[in-house]
Amino acid sequence: MKITLNKEAFSNGIKIVEKSTAQRGIQPVLSNILIETISDNKVRFCATDLNQTITLDLDANVEEEGKITLNAKKLNEISLKLQEKPIVISNDVDTNVIKITCGKSKFEMNSIGVSDYLQIFKDNKNEDENEKVFEINKEIFNKAIKQTMYCCAQSESASILGGVCVNIKENTLEVAATDGNRLTRVIKAINSKSQEETFIIPLKTLQEIARISSIVNDKDLKIKINKTKIYFIFDNIKFSSKLIEGIYPKYQQLIPTTNEKIVKIDKEELINSIERVSIMVNERTNIIKFMFEKNNLTLKADAPEAGIGSDELEIEYNYDDIVIGFNYKYILEALKNIESKNVIIEISTNLSATIFKPEDNNEQICLVMPVQVR
Amino acid sequence: MKITLNKEAFSNGIKIVEKSTAQRGIQPVLSNILIETISDNKVRFCATDLNQTITLDLDANVEEEGKITLNAKKLNEISLKLQEKPIVISNDVDTNVIKITCGKSKFEMNSIGVSDYLQIFKDNKNEDENEKVFEINKEIFNKAIKQTMYCCAQSESASILGGVCVNIKENTLEVAATDGNRLTRVIKAINSKSQEETFIIPLKTLQEIARISSIVNDKDLKIKINKTKIYFIFDNIKFSSKLIEGIYPKYQQLIPTTNEKIVKIDKEELINSIERVSIMVNERTNIIKFMFEKNNLTLKADAPEAGIGSDELEIEYNYDDIVIGFNYKYILEALKNIESKNVIIEISTNLSATIFKPEDNNEQICLVMPVQVR
Repeated sequence: MKITLNKEAFSNGIKIVEKSTAQRGIQPVLSNILIETISDNKVRFCATDLNQTITLDLDANVEEEGKITLNAKKLNEISLKLQEKPIVISNDVDTNVIKITCGKSKFEMNSIGVSDYLQIFKDNKNEDENEKVFEINKEIFNKAIKQTMYCCAQSESASILGGVCVNIKENTLEVAATDGNRLTRVIKAINSKSQEETFIIPLKTLQEIARISSIVNDKDLKIKINKTKIYFIFDNIKFSSKLIEGIYPKYQQLIPTTNEKIVKIDKEELINSIERVSIMVNERTNIIKFMFEKNNLTLKADAPEAGIGSDELEIEYNYDDIVIGFNYKYILEALKNIESKNVIIEISTNLSATIFKPEDNNEQICLVMPVQVR
Repeated sequence: MKITLNKEAFSNGIKIVEKSTAQRGIQPVLSNILIETISDNKVRFCATDLNQTITLDLDANVEEEGKITLNAKKLNEISLKLQEKPIVISNDVDTNVIKITCGKSKFEMNSIGVSDYLQIFKDNKNEDENEKVFEINKEIFNKAIKQTMYCCAQSESASILGGVCVNIKENTLEVAATDGNRLTRVIKAINSKSQEETFIIPLKTLQEIARISSIVNDKDLKIKINKTKIYFIFDNIKFSSKLIEGIYPKYQQLIPTTNEKIVKIDKEELINSIERVSIMVNERTNIIKFMFEKNNLTLKADAPEAGIGSDELEIEYNYDDIVIGFNYKYILEALKNIESKNVIIEISTNLSATIFKPEDNNEQICLVMPVQVR
């Protein structure tokens, strides 16, 4: 192989595919990127960790065809340090040594496991006739994902709750996530011209898609799904991931619709008060007490060893006094994902699901379960 | 005690003294700050970790005299989150509870160990009649320290090499540091009007002095020393530290004066080349080979598992070819502490001390011992 690439395209390319490699795995070749020539002016970078796979096509001057794999981490380090000059990558088939040259800088590395890599790719490819295709406005999709994915069960990537549940209908996109203690649901108007479909995307895939789609210029996301996999198709990038298989909990029935105590609070003031009081929170429980009284909210935290912290906010509240305990971290995350100036809190009892939502729309709701306090 | 402080002065005060507390120690009270009233419009914040001690005097409205101690970390967190309103600190002598109030935010903490704290302060105070006093331009002193302290033995805070050796004469300030593998010496012209004095300041003290003196406006540093301690006296801050006792190695005789191969290299280009090649360095040895040939310098690193990296620089060099191995981290640190555009390298043999210095003055020299390479 002998190819010449533009420095910037090379660096950006490595950056895009690097995250899909498996840095610590039983198959060392998965920490490598496969580079292969696909025509006399195109090369393809491929990376996979077996759960997700990415390919990126780049312009290049191909003098000699070939396939090599190179350690992604080292390639990225090299690409960050090279001068702004054309990069020549060539290999010596006899010694298996790959040379990367850029100006007077030279690097030599061994290519390992091209055949292993190709076999993994082949095994991993399960084409399925029953594919469905959607096109969704990228910005709307990404925003819905961003507003929900913080609610996924973080440590359970393999379980149903370790992903975000996406429901696409002809005119609506509904996205939900829950970790059992809290739930977020977002509904957005779209125009997808497709049949209804529900699937669960793993958190790691969503983070990766958010990253990649912030780099590319495509206005719409082209999504293909089959029974086990999802494909995101951009201009020169194809990204695929396993879906989480199983049935997502029927979360709609968990969302209360009759919480009768309705409070409106300045969101930033509430965030600041919670952060202030949280200094004195018991770090084992993270509980802050929310004490609602006529036109007043007192927040209070109490850590036996450290002391007591409290703060007060003027609010509009004309119901019976109520004291509710929350894990303050859940409340802060919910508030920080709500965009309106004021937040609406809908309360029923001190042990039932409490709703946090923006003042100006019903698209987004965040539900947090209280914690029992004395 | 009942005092009222300005929010900004309170926050800045906590930030200044907090670093001198001992966060993990056998005496828990040392993680606290002592706050005491010293007149009807002044309070004093004190902190010590037994090696270093700081006091800071602040304007305050003192309604009721008193002394309290409060956890420095919690106080700092609180001060960062409070609104811009006056802060009232009061204590209840019976319950030993301290209240901090700022607008509608309230914090309660227990005061612990005021008497322990005062005893520690008393034990720690060893006034010595044989004090010497210097005044040195703050900027010159700090620059000399900054240019040398990276050479201290980092992990040996108690040993002679864990500090910087300072020599003050009437017209010169000489500062040196070495960790046994490399050495830096800086000489600056000053006007101190004092007798010659040599002392060794611990690294941690220097870092603290650099931090404090970047906050205060004083043009000169007022330094007092006695046999075991150094005092830095600012307008409203007194900072003291133990000196490292012992005799510093006679480093002057280690500095070669007859290295005959003299090279001039663009400093930034050399830094970039080293960083590029270092990607392929063997992480156990950190060795990069410097291969000097007629008007050319080749850098080369070789990690058995990863590969080979090399780079070339055009230089002015008209001596015999020579190959020298260096721990590249030492070279990078030396180069990054040299301010001129070009750096001068003075070489004798591939096993003797090599000098790095700025092109435009003889104030500063950095000496690095090579590593044997095949």
